[in-house]
Amino acid sequence: MSSLNQEKCEACRADAPKVNDEELKELMAMIPDWVPVVKNNIMQLEREYSFKSYLDGLAFTQKLGEAAENEGHHPDILTEWGKVTVTWWSHKIKGLHRNDFIMASKTDQLYL
Amino acid sequence: MSSLNQEKCEACRADAPKVNDEELKELMAMIPDWVPVVKNNIMQLEREYSFKSYLDGLAFTQKLGEAAENEGHHPDILTEWGKVTVTWWSHKIKGLHRNDFIMASKTDQLYL
Repeated sequence: MSSLNQEKCEACRADAPKVNDEELKELMAMIPDWVPVVKNNIMQLEREYSFKSYLDGLAFTQKLGEAAENEGHHPDILTEWGKVTVTWWSHKIKGLHRNDFIMASKTDQLYL
Repeated sequence: MSSLNQEKCEACRADAPKVNDEELKELMAMIPDWVPVVKNNIMQLEREYSFKSYLDGLAFTQKLGEAAENEGHHPDILTEWGKVTVTWWSHKIKGLHRNDFIMASKTDQLYL
């Protein structure tokens, strides 16, 4: 259904456009397990993943962190017992860029 | 100065006592870089560690997570670009046990 995870992040400049309302609707439909949240006035994408153990969650955090480094785009990752919460947004534009949806989709793939 | 990091966590039961005000003052003095925070009505210990890169922070998260698993006591770890925020408390007693101060001190040692 989604081909977002096949895309690569492009370099994000401070003057890059945030996704508009129409794009937002279309892109959110491609990552149905994610929710848009607003923190400090910045729209972000968030998803909570469940794990059977702390070490399982920790391994996911590690895998995601390495994948993020490879793309040059870094999420916040909150590792807790039984769950890991991932948050994506583009710091440079203080909002959501297509890159964030690409990375959300790739994050889902790492969880499979 | 502190010998907390030489101690081992003891099994924490739901009827274990939270640290009292006097103990809190004494124990906080032994981990001067930590601050007590109250979240959801639960007192917790929190410290933010700085890192030069995302991968450095991620490596610390991994090291801490493994150490936590070995002690059977697990923190929340928020991994972000350039920093990792660690939060300790005892879920079973919804507050602070001596174990949390032991683990805070051990976390500091991992950062050295």
